[in-house]
Amino acid sequence: MPIYKAPVDEALFLLEDVLNFQEYGQLPGFGDLTGETLAAILGEAAKIYEEVAQPLNQSGDREGCHRHDDASVTTPKGFKEAFRALAEGGWIGLSVPAEYGGQGLPYTLTVLGNEFASSANMSFAMYSGLTQGAMAALLRHGSEEQKQTYLPKMVTGEWTGTMNLTEPQCGTDLGLLTTRAKPLPDGAYAISGQKIFISSGEHDLAENIIHLVLARIEGAPAGVKGISLFIVPKFDLKPDGSLGARNGVSCGSIEHKMGIHANSTCVMNYEEARGYLVGESNRGLNAMFVMMNEARLGVAVQGIAISEAAYQNAAQYAKERLQGRSLSGPKNPGGPADPLLVHPDIRRMLMEIRGFNEAARGLALSAALDSDLAHRSHDPAVRQAAEDRLGLLTPVMKGVFTDVGFQNAVMAQQIYGGYGYIAEGGMEQFVRDARITMIYEGANGVQALDLVGRKLPRDGGRAIMAYYREVGGFISRTTDEELAPYVKPLKASLDDLQKATLWLMQNALTKPENAGAASYEYMHLFGAVAMGYVWAKIAQAALAKMKRDPDSVPAMQAKLVTAKFYMERMLPQTALRLARIETGADTLMALAPEQF
Amino acid sequence: MPIYKAPVDEALFLLEDVLNFQEYGQLPGFGDLTGETLAAILGEAAKIYEEVAQPLNQSGDREGCHRHDDASVTTPKGFKEAFRALAEGGWIGLSVPAEYGGQGLPYTLTVLGNEFASSANMSFAMYSGLTQGAMAALLRHGSEEQKQTYLPKMVTGEWTGTMNLTEPQCGTDLGLLTTRAKPLPDGAYAISGQKIFISSGEHDLAENIIHLVLARIEGAPAGVKGISLFIVPKFDLKPDGSLGARNGVSCGSIEHKMGIHANSTCVMNYEEARGYLVGESNRGLNAMFVMMNEARLGVAVQGIAISEAAYQNAAQYAKERLQGRSLSGPKNPGGPADPLLVHPDIRRMLMEIRGFNEAARGLALSAALDSDLAHRSHDPAVRQAAEDRLGLLTPVMKGVFTDVGFQNAVMAQQIYGGYGYIAEGGMEQFVRDARITMIYEGANGVQALDLVGRKLPRDGGRAIMAYYREVGGFISRTTDEELAPYVKPLKASLDDLQKATLWLMQNALTKPENAGAASYEYMHLFGAVAMGYVWAKIAQAALAKMKRDPDSVPAMQAKLVTAKFYMERMLPQTALRLARIETGADTLMALAPEQF
Repeated sequence: MPIYKAPVDEALFLLEDVLNFQEYGQLPGFGDLTGETLAAILGEAAKIYEEVAQPLNQSGDREGCHRHDDASVTTPKGFKEAFRALAEGGWIGLSVPAEYGGQGLPYTLTVLGNEFASSANMSFAMYSGLTQGAMAALLRHGSEEQKQTYLPKMVTGEWTGTMNLTEPQCGTDLGLLTTRAKPLPDGAYAISGQKIFISSGEHDLAENIIHLVLARIEGAPAGVKGISLFIVPKFDLKPDGSLGARNGVSCGSIEHKMGIHANSTCVMNYEEARGYLVGESNRGLNAMFVMMNEARLGVAVQGIAISEAAYQNAAQYAKERLQGRSLSGPKNPGGPADPLLVHPDIRRMLMEIRGFNEAARGLALSAALDSDLAHRSHDPAVRQAAEDRLGLLTPVMKGVFTDVGFQNAVMAQQIYGGYGYIAEGGMEQFVRDARITMIYEGANGVQALDLVGRKLPRDGGRAIMAYYREVGGFISRTTDEELAPYVKPLKASLDDLQKATLWLMQNALTKPENAGAASYEYMHLFGAVAMGYVWAKIAQAALAKMKRDPDSVPAMQAKLVTAKFYMERMLPQTALRLARIETGADTLMALAPEQF
Repeated sequence: MPIYKAPVDEALFLLEDVLNFQEYGQLPGFGDLTGETLAAILGEAAKIYEEVAQPLNQSGDREGCHRHDDASVTTPKGFKEAFRALAEGGWIGLSVPAEYGGQGLPYTLTVLGNEFASSANMSFAMYSGLTQGAMAALLRHGSEEQKQTYLPKMVTGEWTGTMNLTEPQCGTDLGLLTTRAKPLPDGAYAISGQKIFISSGEHDLAENIIHLVLARIEGAPAGVKGISLFIVPKFDLKPDGSLGARNGVSCGSIEHKMGIHANSTCVMNYEEARGYLVGESNRGLNAMFVMMNEARLGVAVQGIAISEAAYQNAAQYAKERLQGRSLSGPKNPGGPADPLLVHPDIRRMLMEIRGFNEAARGLALSAALDSDLAHRSHDPAVRQAAEDRLGLLTPVMKGVFTDVGFQNAVMAQQIYGGYGYIAEGGMEQFVRDARITMIYEGANGVQALDLVGRKLPRDGGRAIMAYYREVGGFISRTTDEELAPYVKPLKASLDDLQKATLWLMQNALTKPENAGAASYEYMHLFGAVAMGYVWAKIAQAALAKMKRDPDSVPAMQAKLVTAKFYMERMLPQTALRLARIETGADTLMALAPEQF
C-alpha cells in the first residue's frame, strides 16, 4: 500500500523563511495567520487528506466510476463520505470571501491544500478542484445575484461545479466551438450541443452540479469572438433557490482513460438545457481565461503533488529493499544485501525528484501569493506587478511542472524495478494519473506558445523585464561567499535565458515559425531558471536558519545539498536548451507533409 | 483504431545501403539473400504482423489473460489462431539451424521481424520472443540430446519457452536466489521454489511449455557461483518424446500490470518439479548471461518498435486533425482550421521520434549482424571484433532505446491531445506497454552499471578502443564537404564521449561511486554518439543513392533532413551529459539515509 505524509514542515519553511508570509499581514484574510495558526491549519489539512482521501486512492482507481442506464454516475466506494468530510471541514471554500460562506483565507493556502489533496488522491481532489475553479469564474464574472445563488451551496459542497469547453472537433482551438445558445423569452437561453472530456461531469457526491458552459448565441460572430459563458445547473432552481426540474443536460458516457479512473470524465449532452449568461455576451472566452489561469496553476500543482507522493514511496522502498552491495563495500554486512539507497544511480533518481519538488513548491506558493496580492492588495503597483509575474509564470509552471512531475513519477516507479510495473504497489497509478496533467487545461505545447507568443511580448515585455530585474537584483545583491555555489550557476542560466529571449526578439518577428520552434525549449529553459532562483533563495534562507537555530541543522543541510545537486546536475540544461533554440525553424519545417 | 505498416523500405535501405548486407554472402545462411529474396521475406513478415498480429493488439489489451481455478490460463480471443499462423509461417525458428528444424537464416532478419512483431502487438510477440530466447540458450548450452529433444517442437510453436530468474526477494541481485534443486536417483532434479514476473509463464497457445529455470543445487556455494540452469517442461516427456505426466510446476497467479495485458505474466510455483540440468552445475549464470544478452537486444528492439508504431499513428493524426492556424498564415484556407502538422511544436515531436527511430533501427541491425558474424564467421578476428562490439553496445541499446522509446510513445500520445488519454485511440496503450521495457531484462540503471563497470574495462578496454578507432576512422576518412554538417557534430560528440571515458578512468578506480554516479549519463552519452554515427552513415548512403537513383530523391532528402535535425537538436545533449558526469558522486552521496 502506498504511503503519504503531507510535507507540512517543508511548506512552513517555504512560506515563512523563503516567502516571508508573515510580512503580508495587512492583506485581507492574512492578518490572523501567525506561525502557530498557520501550522495548525496545515496540520488539519494534512490530516484530512492523509486519513480520509489517501486510503481511497488505490481502491478508487481499481473500482472507477460507473454510469447507469438512467445516465446517473456512481463514484467509487467511500468517495461520498470522504467528500462530505472535506466539505464539512471547510476546505472547498477556504479562500472564498466570507460573504458567500467561505473562510476568506489566502488563496496560497488553498493551493497548498490542493497539493496535499492531489498527492493523496488526485481523482478525488478533482471534484472539489473543479468546484473551486467554477467558483473563481463566478466570483470574477458572475452577477451579484448569481454569486448569492450559487456560491454558498458550492462552498458547502452541497453542489459542485464543472468547466465545459472541449467538443469533439475543438480542443485547443475554441474558435471551432459549435454548442448553441438560443435566447428564451424569459432572458435565459436554451443550450444544445455536445461537450467531451468533462471532469467531474456527473456523479453522486452532490445534490446539484453547476456546469459552466461555453456556447455560441444564435447569430454571434464566428470564431472566438462569438463565444459566451453560461451557467447550466443540473437541476434548475425554483424562485426560492431550492432544487427544481431536472435540466436538459446529461452524461452520455464515461470515457475509458489511462488514469484518474475515480474521476468521472464525461461526455455531456446538452439538449435545450436552460442556461444563464455569465458576464457579457460574446465575452465568454475572457471569463474562461481567468478561470483557466487559476486552473493552470492548479494543474501545475498536481504535477508537484504526484512527484511528491511518488518520491515518498520510492525513498521508503529504497531504504527497505535489499538488493546488491555498495560499490564501496557492504553497508549492511549483517544482512543478505545492502538497501537500494547505497547505489549512486538510485540516489540520482531520488535527488532529481527532490531537486524539483521543493523548488517547484516554492515557485507555486510564490505564484499563489502573487494571486493573493493581485486580488487583495490596495496598492495598484503591487497588484500590477503581481499580476504580471503570475501571468508570465503560469504557462511555465503548467508546462514544466507537469512534464517533470510525470518524469518523476516514472523515475520513482523505476526504483521499484519489476514491482513498479505491478498495480499493487501503486507506483504505476501515479504514472497513469500524472500523464493527464501534461494534456488538460491546455496541452504543454500550447502553454509554451502562450508564453512565447502572448506573455513575453505583452505590454512591451514589461513582465519579463521586471522578472530579469528581480532575479538579476538578487544575484548582484547576494555576494556572500557561502552562497556563491548557488548564485554563480544561477547567473549563468539567467544569461542563457536572456540570450534566448533576445534571439526570439530578433528572429521571431520576421519568421513566426522560429517562435513556435523555440517555444517548448524556451519554456523549459525558463522553468529551470525560475526553479534555480527559488533554490538560491532556499539556500540563503537555510544558511540563515541553521545559524540561528541549531536544531534545524540536519534539515537545512539537506536543503543545501539538494540545492547544490540542482545547480550541478539540473540547471546546466539551460545551455542545451539555448543551443536548440538558436537552430531555428528551418530544419524543423523542411519536410513536406507527405514525407511524414 | 491504431494503424501500423512495417517499415520495409526503411529496413531494406539500412541493410543494403548502410550496412552492406550483400557483402556477407559467404556467411552460412546469408548466401541466397539477394535483394529480391530479402525484400520478399520482409514483405511476408510485414504481412503476417500487420494483418494477423496487429488487429489483436487493442482487443488483447482490453481482454487480458485469465487464470482459471485449475491454474490454466486463457489468452485473449484470436491469439491461438494468430500464434498458429505465425508458427506455420516459420517465423519463430527463422534463424535456428536447419538440423533442428529452423530455416537457418540470419539472426539479423529475426531481429527485424521481431521489431515488426512488437510494433504490431508487443504482448503477442513475447510468446514467440521468449521461445526464441529459450532456444538460444539451449543451442549454446544444451547437450545434443537436449537440442534434438526440445528445439524442433519449439521451432514449430507446438511448444513454447520461458525464462525463470526473478524471485520475490531477488531481482537484479541473483545471488539471493533460493529456488532449490534436489538430485534424483535417475540424474534429474526435483525443483522447488517460487518465481515471479514470468512472461508467457502459462497459456493456451502451445501443448507444452519449456521453462528454463535458475536454481541452487543442494549444497552449492552461496551467491551467484552456486546457481545452475534447468529445463523444466510443463509436461514431462516419455522416452519416445511424446507428452508424459504433468510436472510439478503451475501458475499461482497472473500479475495485475500497467500494460502488456495480453501477455500472461505469472507467479510460477515449483513443487518438486522434474528438471534437467543444462550445461555444468553452478555455471547457470553464465548460460543465462548469453540468453540475457540476446534478450536485451530483443528488448532494445521493443523500444524501437513501440516508438515506430506510435510515430506512424501520431504522424497520421497530425496530418488529419484540424486545429488552429499556421503561424505564417492559413495552410488550409478552405477548411475550418489547419492540420496540426503546420505547428512547429508538433513537428518538433515528430522529428525527435524520427531522429531516433531510423538510427536506432540501424544500430540494432548492425548489432544483430555482429551477432551473426560472431557465430557464423570463420575468421576468429572478425568473430572477436563482432563480439566485442556487440557486448559493448548491448547495454547501451537496451538502456537508451527503451528510455527513448518510452519517451517517444509519450510524445506521440501528446500529439493527440485529450484523445491520447482515452483508451479507444490506442496511444495510451503504447505508453503502458513501452514502460516495461525500461524495467525487465535488467532495469536501465543496471544496464548503465554493466556498461561502465564491466563492458568498458573488459580486456583492457579493447572494445571501446576499437569503437573509437571505427568512428574516428569514419570521421577522418569522410572529408566530403557535403557531409560536413553531419560529420562535424559527430566529431564534437565523440570528443565528449572520450573525455567522459577518460574522466571515468581517472576517477572511478579511486572512488567507485564516481562510476555509479556517472553511469546513467554515460550510457545516454554513448547512445547519442552511436546513433549520431549511424545518422552520418545514413547521410552518406543517402547522398550516394540520390545521385545514382533520381527516383529515390524525396525519400533520401527526408533522411538528410532528419539527420540534420538529429545533429542540430538531439546530439548536442552530449555536452550536458559530460558536464553532469564531471560533477562526480560527492553531492549525490552526501545525504544520510534518514534525510531521504
